[in-house]
Amino acid sequence: MAPVVTAFDQNGEIDFGRTITHCNWLLGHGCDGLVVFGTTSEANSLSLSEREHLLEAIVNSGISPARLLVGNGSCALPDAVELAAHALRVGSAGVLMLPPFYYKTVSVDGLFAFFAEFIEHVADPRLQVYLYHIPPVAQVGIPLALLEKLRARYGKVIAGIKDSSGDWENTRWLLAQFGDLQIFPGSEAFLLRALRLGAGGCISGTANVGAETMQRLYQKWQTAEAEDMQLTLNRVREVFQRFPIIAAIKAVLAAANTDDQWRHLRPPLSPLSDPDSRALMRELEVLGFKLPRFQVG
Amino acid sequence: MAPVVTAFDQNGEIDFGRTITHCNWLLGHGCDGLVVFGTTSEANSLSLSEREHLLEAIVNSGISPARLLVGNGSCALPDAVELAAHALRVGSAGVLMLPPFYYKTVSVDGLFAFFAEFIEHVADPRLQVYLYHIPPVAQVGIPLALLEKLRARYGKVIAGIKDSSGDWENTRWLLAQFGDLQIFPGSEAFLLRALRLGAGGCISGTANVGAETMQRLYQKWQTAEAEDMQLTLNRVREVFQRFPIIAAIKAVLAAANTDDQWRHLRPPLSPLSDPDSRALMRELEVLGFKLPRFQVG
Repeated sequence: MAPVVTAFDQNGEIDFGRTITHCNWLLGHGCDGLVVFGTTSEANSLSLSEREHLLEAIVNSGISPARLLVGNGSCALPDAVELAAHALRVGSAGVLMLPPFYYKTVSVDGLFAFFAEFIEHVADPRLQVYLYHIPPVAQVGIPLALLEKLRARYGKVIAGIKDSSGDWENTRWLLAQFGDLQIFPGSEAFLLRALRLGAGGCISGTANVGAETMQRLYQKWQTAEAEDMQLTLNRVREVFQRFPIIAAIKAVLAAANTDDQWRHLRPPLSPLSDPDSRALMRELEVLGFKLPRFQVG
Repeated sequence: MAPVVTAFDQNGEIDFGRTITHCNWLLGHGCDGLVVFGTTSEANSLSLSEREHLLEAIVNSGISPARLLVGNGSCALPDAVELAAHALRVGSAGVLMLPPFYYKTVSVDGLFAFFAEFIEHVADPRLQVYLYHIPPVAQVGIPLALLEKLRARYGKVIAGIKDSSGDWENTRWLLAQFGDLQIFPGSEAFLLRALRLGAGGCISGTANVGAETMQRLYQKWQTAEAEDMQLTLNRVREVFQRFPIIAAIKAVLAAANTDDQWRHLRPPLSPLSDPDSRALMRELEVLGFKLPRFQVG
């Protein structure tokens, strides 16, 4: 699954058309589902009403909401409840929820109270919560004690977890302890190892430009080619990780489609510089990376 | 100035009455002005519309908006613009602005673009921006290079800075380099030193319960008693810092007024435990701390 990048126009407004074109392209090019409003989507740079309008536009364009996991990043409980209720109204498959990320030294009990009040205020049997553990960015993570308490109290409402810790030991531990949860590493670098332990796949920013190779590994992880496929994924990922990754993904979309509109990010994030864009494209070319071209498919 | 704590009822809803009572009490007991929606106010746990309604209720209660600095914490530019436009409409003295705090490795140029677009979208000559530097919580701070760039471009629109770094060297440096800005340390522990270098005062969470002793030092900082007054402030502050500080402030308001409603915090923050509350009150009693009693004044 790709956390879909959000396209902006030169004035910093959401470019609905390009974003929806990209969503459709992803579903035809390797993605089984989409996360709208993940970290890669610059979701926390969007207002609540912008998120609601974009989600509605995506669904109204004909994309099945059952293929959408809706990111829900909010420090304020009422906002989190509103976003989730909206995501359920449009029929999405679930919400991918950040913990509240402003206060930094919060207790497990305090985080539990946040999620518990969230679930009880949404009060909808269709609610499926995927917990979003991304301590390198949010700083506040999903401690294992929190996960255990939430599972004990809310059972199958807690449907899964995206582990973007970048720490394989954490992902491995989750897969071992919570076999009935859908567990997604936040990087394709762990895809093969995670699939072998029962992961549901991966949710990775670079799937915005390279989901087809991830999908092939997902299909063939039990074959002899799997290790080589993983190495190819790693080499591409390492290139992206040498740059600010969201800007790099947008630079590739811009270069591949000769469409500079794709280069815009919303502050505080900045586009890749021209020299960095050229360096990135050269490094990807050396690896024989297949460009994400919307028209040519 | 106190960053006013927000009172909640047992259901987690804003308790407008208690919050406004507290605002009035503060203005009669040592505060020259109030920050509504600071870190101590749990502002990032409030939705945008809750913040707007509470600000309106405070102003409608008769408190002069000229005494209010309105905290503006938002990761999303459109939200920041909306909150500031609202604060100006009700006549507040300025906005105390956090940098966008979700993404952690942002460039000075990216932060500058955020503030620049903010100022240009608000587009109101009354706008006075106080920058809020609180790296222990927000992680993203106000780098000095950003402050310099903003001053160079926007001049007096950048009116001041609240320095909650907890790092006296940083406050000292700001006071030395930016004498024409209003500079407020985020702790009364630095009050005397800061006043001697030209600070405008301090904005401190503990002013919610102890502004009168801060005000006395502010009046008498050039007298022989000043050092002793600072030591008294330090001793009280050290007690509060042994506890989660927002919960501790609310515990003192609850105990002093025999009003348990004051103990509520909104998740992810939690109230002080009963034993911790008793320990806190005992330690304050030993210091002869004057209790913040609303009725007795």
